[in-house]
This record gives sequence, structure tokens and C-alpha cells, in this order.
Amino acid sequence: MAMFFNIFSLKNLLVLSLALNVSLVLRVLYEKDFEVNNGRFVDNQKDALTTTDSVLSEARATQRARPSMPSSSSTVDSDGGDTIINLDHGDPTMYESFWQQAGDKSTIVIPGWQSMSYFSDAGSLCWFLEPEFAKEIIRLHKTVGNAVTEDHYIVVGTGSTQLYQAVLYALSPQDAVEPLSVVSAAPYYSSYPLITDCLKSGLYKWAGDARSFNKEGPFIELVTSPNNPDGYVRQSVVNKSGGILVHDLAYYWPQYTPIASAANHDIMLFTVSKSTGHAGMRIGWALVKDEEVAKKMVKFVELNTIGVSKDSQLRAAKVLQVVIHSCRYPTSLGSLFDFAAHLMEERWKLLNAAVRQSGLFTLPEFSPGSCSFLNKSFPPQPAFAWLKCQEPMEDCEGFLRSNNIITRSGKHFGVSPQYVRISMLDRDENFYIFVERLSTIHQRQSVQLGETGE
Amino acid sequence: MAMFFNIFSLKNLLVLSLALNVSLVLRVLYEKDFEVNNGRFVDNQKDALTTTDSVLSEARATQRARPSMPSSSSTVDSDGGDTIINLDHGDPTMYESFWQQAGDKSTIVIPGWQSMSYFSDAGSLCWFLEPEFAKEIIRLHKTVGNAVTEDHYIVVGTGSTQLYQAVLYALSPQDAVEPLSVVSAAPYYSSYPLITDCLKSGLYKWAGDARSFNKEGPFIELVTSPNNPDGYVRQSVVNKSGGILVHDLAYYWPQYTPIASAANHDIMLFTVSKSTGHAGMRIGWALVKDEEVAKKMVKFVELNTIGVSKDSQLRAAKVLQVVIHSCRYPTSLGSLFDFAAHLMEERWKLLNAAVRQSGLFTLPEFSPGSCSFLNKSFPPQPAFAWLKCQEPMEDCEGFLRSNNIITRSGKHFGVSPQYVRISMLDRDENFYIFVERLSTIHQRQSVQLGETGE
Repeated sequence: MAMFFNIFSLKNLLVLSLALNVSLVLRVLYEKDFEVNNGRFVDNQKDALTTTDSVLSEARATQRARPSMPSSSSTVDSDGGDTIINLDHGDPTMYESFWQQAGDKSTIVIPGWQSMSYFSDAGSLCWFLEPEFAKEIIRLHKTVGNAVTEDHYIVVGTGSTQLYQAVLYALSPQDAVEPLSVVSAAPYYSSYPLITDCLKSGLYKWAGDARSFNKEGPFIELVTSPNNPDGYVRQSVVNKSGGILVHDLAYYWPQYTPIASAANHDIMLFTVSKSTGHAGMRIGWALVKDEEVAKKMVKFVELNTIGVSKDSQLRAAKVLQVVIHSCRYPTSLGSLFDFAAHLMEERWKLLNAAVRQSGLFTLPEFSPGSCSFLNKSFPPQPAFAWLKCQEPMEDCEGFLRSNNIITRSGKHFGVSPQYVRISMLDRDENFYIFVERLSTIHQRQSVQLGETGE
Repeated sequence: MAMFFNIFSLKNLLVLSLALNVSLVLRVLYEKDFEVNNGRFVDNQKDALTTTDSVLSEARATQRARPSMPSSSSTVDSDGGDTIINLDHGDPTMYESFWQQAGDKSTIVIPGWQSMSYFSDAGSLCWFLEPEFAKEIIRLHKTVGNAVTEDHYIVVGTGSTQLYQAVLYALSPQDAVEPLSVVSAAPYYSSYPLITDCLKSGLYKWAGDARSFNKEGPFIELVTSPNNPDGYVRQSVVNKSGGILVHDLAYYWPQYTPIASAANHDIMLFTVSKSTGHAGMRIGWALVKDEEVAKKMVKFVELNTIGVSKDSQLRAAKVLQVVIHSCRYPTSLGSLFDFAAHLMEERWKLLNAAVRQSGLFTLPEFSPGSCSFLNKSFPPQPAFAWLKCQEPMEDCEGFLRSNNIITRSGKHFGVSPQYVRISMLDRDENFYIFVERLSTIHQRQSVQLGETGE
């Protein structure tokens, strides 16, 4: 425990306790205020789980109280290890505190009569793309320098998940004798095979690990960079012709990885879920060089959902505006990317320390790289931890589950169940319970083994 | 022209002209105000098409000015027949004026930190369904009396289009030897075959007109009632066992058809697009009796788009609240359904008169029915006109296109190109140009024929 107390000192715990009290008082006041001013119902949030400010409030004394929100993952309790910490999904709720502090300028107001039509811009290639949102996408990429928008069409989607399917539809010949193979180097994003094969499409078919792919003929290779689940920067691995590359750049933002240069690929996918934290909006965008591919993607979104929520696009435009402003005119809070990069850095330090303390796991090792946006050199600090259990443990997911930590097994990512993927983007209180539990899991395990006489 | 002037009197035209001037002045004022107060960009609306109050403003003198909005369909011009009137889509923009008049109570305000998580209600079957929206759906059906919600699960979708695909996925066995047949009685909604077959799924396959379907084994029959495109009330037509019925009730609202009783089917689909006019929200809902079917539908939406925009669900909840309030405490404007039923009645009168005047077309004939919600008897007044060109014209869509009226040919609905589907839900100015042109099309045609010497 000595090392653990190096990380979580008594002072920190005292601050956490005080912050909890202050936050509960403020929460009661804020919730009442919110209920009156906003006119929304909070009844269904009455039994919602208590959220508290974190140990980070020591460093960010100006943090405002957080209104109550339903949590997907856990309750804060005295934690004898009973609290279930669900880090299976990459739910980016850690971003809530930035947006609370950003205040009213990110609030969207939509009158009842607005955006009623199916059409956003009837004459344009992507007729359901809100022009305001398109404009902010271009400004954001210019500001961050992570992607080239010139000579690309923008296609909006109901999250990048829909755009992934739109790409498959657009790239697959309608008259092919057999389905087009879709591959990605393992470990690959666990949803790729599920989405690709869920309807048993005759147009395309999941063909597994790109490294072992050797079938003749055309194929699609998904290049996720930084990679979900392991965070490494990636390039195409299939060493043969006939492949069409699709770059999933959901995590190519400076809070997760150094921005080396502006990506300039034929098809690039992005999402607000991982850039600003607004997963509930269900908004993603594709930058597409070829006009015919872009048109077919638009056709898919038309067939699939007749366009994309205007409300969320308008809200996304507003949110990107605030992000861009936070980069150009940073306040004491810094930009969104400063905030998130700082938080990721702290979390990775804590996780690395907890892993060393436990002695039961390993994590990927990253080399530092120079970031043109943050003007410094740092190693990747990914949105997921790709944890490997040491021998002789073979089922890392099961082991962590027995300790009330819910993760996603490596087998879903095309590799061994010795690995698990763990979200690093949850709310502070869950993350801190998680690292605390991970750091002491060895002792707990010893006690349990002693108790059962094994 | 005598009859046309019976419909559009000089007095009406004078009122239209005055309303146009007043509305332009108000528009300039309103737009300026809107720009300042709302903080949104209106630059991309600067060259937007002028919208005006309609002849209906005579009857509704309190109507407020409408802010400028981009139109998918036409420009208002002096109309020598050059204006292209696009009534191909069922874009429900006629509802805008109700929501303008409803004012601020339908405005939604969403702070930047709200609804960031993927989850709306993690513990419930449909984990991405906002509880507030679910509550309003139940209240709305209770108020209108058009569907039974008891013993049904609610599944939200990105429009009912996504829910249609979710239903196909949920009902198709994963291990079947051949795809499940999907049928509907012609004329059927033109998108059904396109959506069903777009990915060449191995799970299900479009099998055409339900009336001629005689394949052995299980099948899905889509019952759209009132029907898109022709507006008739429908029941299942396949006379054999093994069928699973899916009821698409998008148009089962009192503005389109008398509400005979509360529908109580196994699977019912609804959408805000056709009930409140908010097509741009992309929000639909399904009422589903069987828990396993509901669970599989939720799984599809998870795979397809990882849930449904929270912003649009919150906005939809607010809009339904206002609709319900307008039913319980009607103002001089009446409820949303009073407003829309009145407008549909007027439009159908005008269309019937124009069709009689032209002598070139016929329309479906409807019998009146008793409506439990509006407490009166009236014939259906559908959201689409299902127009048939008289012999010897065979290509009705082409004929109307040559008169700058864009419609959808019967061939897309599984029947003869002598038919076309025409949206009855466009903005006033487009609808009035359309009926005016239709009523005089015979004269125009004669002039053209005379000119070309045919």
C-alpha cells in the first residue's frame, strides 16, 4: 500500500471528502435552480446516482458543481470493492466537467418551428448536412491541424458507426459475384466484425485480421489510428494491391496522441463522441476525396435514416465553435484539448502506477512524439487502456469481473483473452475507484485465496 | 378559368398580395431580431427563398411572420409556370406555421454539458430511450386514442425508417437457409423495396405485392394504414398462415384519417415527421408487444447507430408536450390536430376542385368515417394525393414534370406509371401554385399543342 499512498495521499483523501460535501450541497442548490430555470423534468433523475467532484478539484478550484446525471456505471459507496465499475464502453463522460465550466456559451436554443424539413441544403451533394456544421468542421481541422479538408467532401452521419456502413456500401460493387472482403489488423475495434456481418450482406463480408489476409481480388482495409483498442499509431499492413483504405481517425486528437501532421487520406472518419465528448449527439463526419464515393455514402444515409438529426448537427456546430474559441482565446481553464490532454496525462500516470503496484498486469509501451498543436513532445495517452494479465491468468476479463471491474475481453478484438480493453474516459469518481482497486487487487486476491484455503 | 376564380377569388389574391408585403416587412424585422437573440448564423439563409403567409392568413389573422428558411422545392415568382414545384418527397413543411404560432413554449434549451453519455436509461430494455420522451409518447397516444401503449415496449429510432430495418432484423432468424420474404400490398411505400434490398441481406428479401404472394413458409407483411401512397385504411391481405404483421401507422393521426379506435397490434411504427411535422429531427418510435422482438430491435439500433440522438429526443419530448397541451387546453389556434386537419380539409377541397377543373385526372374516392378524437365524421384527407392520369396518358410523372411539377411515379409503388404520388404537406405558397397550375394544365397543354402544331 505504500506506493498507493504515494499516489492517493491522506491529504488527497481529505480533499476528496471535503469536495464531496461541498459538491453535495451545491448539487442540491444547483438541481433546484436547474429544475426551475430549465423547465425540464428531473423526476426521473431523482434516484440518479450521486456524482461528486474529484480529487482533481484540488487543482481546479473553480470547478462548478455538477448537476445530477444518471450514470451508466457505478455508485459512489464506501467501496469495499462492492461497487461495480463498468469500463466496458468508451462512454466519454469525463468531458462533462469541461462543458459545465464552459457555461452558457455552449448552450443551444432551438425554437419549435426550426429545422422541420428533411433538407438542410437541398442543392448540395450532402443535402442533409447543416451548412453551419460543415463550416465548423473545416475551422476545427484547420485549428488543430489534424486533417486536410481541402479537396474533400464532407458527409455527416449518425455517429461514425453509420458512416462506416456508408463507406462499405459505397465501396462495394452492386454486381459483384461475391462479397468484398473487409479486414483490419488485430487487435481491431470489436464492433467492426459485428456491424459488417449483422445483416449477412451480399455486398461485403468481414475477413478478419489484415495481417493474415491473403485472398486474391479487391478488399477494404480499415486503418484505425490511433488504434482502438491499443492506442498505437497505425498504417496499412496488407502488402498487396487491390485494397481500398479507410482511415478511422476517431482518436486522432491532441488529448490522445501527438498530432504529427494533417492527415490527408481518401476516406477519413471522425466523431464528436471522442473529440468533444458528446456521444449522446450521435454525430460523426467523413472527409471523402472521391465524389462518387461521397454520393454513394449520402445515398446510404438516405436509405438508412433519411438524413441525420438537424438538432444534433446544430448543437454540434455550437459545440465546435466553443472548442475553436477555446483554442484561439484560451481562458484559465485552457482549451478543450488542454483540459482533456492534462486529464489523460494524469490518468495514465495513475494507471501506470497502479499497474506497477499490482504486479499482475502490463500495459503497452509508447514512445514520445512531437505534437504540432500542443507544441510539446509526449507519449500517446489513449482513450482506452489495453491491459494484459500476466501468466498464469488466461481470462483477464473474468478475473477483473470477479473484482467488480467490467471490461471488454481481448477475444472480441481478434486476440487472446489475456487482454482487456478498459475505458479511460469515465467520470472522475469511477476512474479513481478503478485505479485504487487495481492497485490493491493483488492484496485482495491474496486475502480471498487465504479465506478459501486455496 | 371560371371555376378557378371560384376557388381563388380576386379578394383572395388581394389578401395574398397584402399578406406578402406585411410578411416581408415582418420577416426583415424578425430575421434581424432572430440573428441577434439566437446567435446563430443566418448567412447561409441570406439567399434563401422568400416564404410568405398564405391565403389562409385571411382566416388566421393572428399568424406571426415566418422567418426565412431554405426551401427544398421552389421559389415564389410571378409564375408563368416556370417555377419548379417539387412534391416528390413528403416534406411536412406545412406544419411550420403552427409551430411559429405556438411560440416559445416549444423552444428547447440544451446546455453544453447535458446528454453527453451514450446512455439514457442504462437499466431499461431500450437503454438509449430518453425517459421523458417515452412518457410523452404514452401521454400522446392516450390523448389521441390512436394506439394502445399498455403491454407494449417502446423502442426509439432514427426515424421510423431505421425502425423498419430494426423490425426486419428482429424478425429474421439468424440461421435460416434462405432470406425471409417481405411483402406489402401494392401500391406500397416506394422506399420499402429499396431499403429492404440495398445491402443484399441474407436475412430478408423484398418479395413484392402481398396480393400475389404465394410462396410457402414464413413471411413478413407490412400493413401501412392509412396507406402511403393512396391513403386508404388497410388490413392484412395475405390469406395464409406463417405471416408476421408489421403495422406502419405513420399516418394514423386525426389530421389525415378518422381515428376509429386505438390500434393494438404486435408491432406498430410511428414517427414525429408526419405527426408533428418535425422531419428534420429524425425521430420515430415502435410499440412492440414481444420482449424478445423489442430486445433485438434495440440490438439493431445499437449496431447501426449506437442509439438515437438525445438532443432530438429531448426536443421531441418538448414538442409532444406542447401538442398534448394544445389538445387539453386549446387556444384560438386550436390543437395541432385541429390546425392540421383544417388545413388538410381545405387543401383537399382545392385539389378536388382543381382536378375537376382540369378534366385530365382522377383521385381516390373515400367514404366518411367517425373520428373519436375530433368528434365528427369526415372522409380521409391523406398526406399524399394519389393521382391518376386519364387515358391516353401513360406517363403521368413525365407529363407533370413537363409542367414543372415534380412527383413520384406509380412504378416506384409497384403499380402503373399512370399514377403519381404528390405530397400534400408542402408550404402554402408551393401548394397554391401547384393547385393553380393543375387546374389550368389543360388550357396550357392546349396552347402548347397549338403552338407546336400537333
